[in-house]
Amino acid sequence: MDELIQKIVEFRDSRNWRQFHNPKDLAISLSIEASELLENFQWKTSDESVTVNFERIQEELADVLIYALLLSNELNINPEQAIIDKIKKNEEKYPIEKAYGSNKKYNEL
Amino acid sequence: MDELIQKIVEFRDSRNWRQFHNPKDLAISLSIEASELLENFQWKTSDESVTVNFERIQEELADVLIYALLLSNELNINPEQAIIDKIKKNEEKYPIEKAYGSNKKYNEL
Amino acid sequence: MDELIQKIVEFRDSRNWRQFHNPKDLAISLSIEASELLENFQWKTSDESVTVNFERIQEELADVLIYALLLSNELNINPEQAIIDKIKKNEEKYPIEKAYGSNKKYNEL
Amino acid sequence: MDELIQKIVEFRDSRNWRQFHNPKDLAISLSIEASELLENFQWKTSDESVTVNFERIQEELADVLIYALLLSNELNINPEQAIIDKIKKNEEKYPIEKAYGSNKKYNEL
Repeated sequence: MDELIQKIVEFRDSRNWRQFHNPKDLAISLSIEASELLENFQWKTSDESVTVNFERIQEELADVLIYALLLSNELNINPEQAIIDKIKKNEEKYPIEKAYGSNKKYNEL
Repeated sequence: MDELIQKIVEFRDSRNWRQFHNPKDLAISLSIEASELLENFQWKTSDESVTVNFERIQEELADVLIYALLLSNELNINPEQAIIDKIKKNEEKYPIEKAYGSNKKYNEL
Repeated sequence: MDELIQKIVEFRDSRNWRQFHNPKDLAISLSIEASELLENFQWKTSDESVTVNFERIQEELADVLIYALLLSNELNINPEQAIIDKIKKNEEKYPIEKAYGSNKKYNEL
Repeated sequence: MDELIQKIVEFRDSRNWRQFHNPKDLAISLSIEASELLENFQWKTSDESVTVNFERIQEELADVLIYALLLSNELNINPEQAIIDKIKKNEEKYPIEKAYGSNKKYNEL
């Protein structure tokens, strides 16, 4: 993943864009990209959306990942370690015996 | 990254949650998590947010990555390849000579 | 509607919160509230969501409206006029004969 | 406000779009529009955004209001009453003596 982050940072720095990339604006952009991804599912069933908009979904998903990795990089967060730590935390919030097959939030289980 | 996706999928499947994880609902959840990440920057400067909320930012960022990887997995998208392809596309949308140091969108350059 | 905006502004000013309410942070908050509204529909069908979460949906919808009106107020935008103008614009973007019964975006019609 | 909602519903119904307007998809669209509004503030200070993008901000804000009113209408929620009720609730969550001049969330006050 380091190599990938390196590629993204190079793209950014060769355009001298780091000046805009404070964590708050990166978080804004990540949220906007997630919304553009969601736009591909607007007014459609899940299946219809994937059939009609697959390529755009792939591109917007990539944008989400790019901003998420840029933000990790800016905050010196190791994304893989952060995911592993969060899974551990989620295992406590959602114990299997309570959460199995349920669509409830942890505070409603 | 495959190992990481494996871990996330195991967490999900041991709770029998795949039934909820159609792409549309995953895209909704990704957008909600990106918004929860952004909430850590609400009413604050970027620096103040990072100082006060670093741990929560790390956790929400992990949630964003988890849902992005779950959605890739569900759609058989290789996240690394998708990122590389998107960078290539962005290089065309934002040629260095036009985009250098600019905060404009590609259609305004 | 003026009276309603007056009430909202009084709530805000009696807490001395206007200092935080620059348009950018209001737009962030509006987006966060819209996402909290959407959270009530996460992993559920539309009907199930409304049945289970009606009260919370009503509250989050009110929050969305409150921030939208605060932002209008901050920018001296008349919300009623803005809506009327936007409907006119949408009538041009989505002419009835093309848009009738279609879930496509205007640039795909 | 009733007249305004009437206008919006007429625009919708003359295009036979109500079939898509279940509450879940309306909540998705509201969230997408709030994000498009926020996009006008991306990579810019609040003041710069308003100067450069005022017209677009006004239009996106109108879209947010339109979807919020459509959703109220679909759920038989009176938007004015919902706002008044929410302000009352917020007055309890944020008592003046605790919340005065603070940018903290109610659960951190």
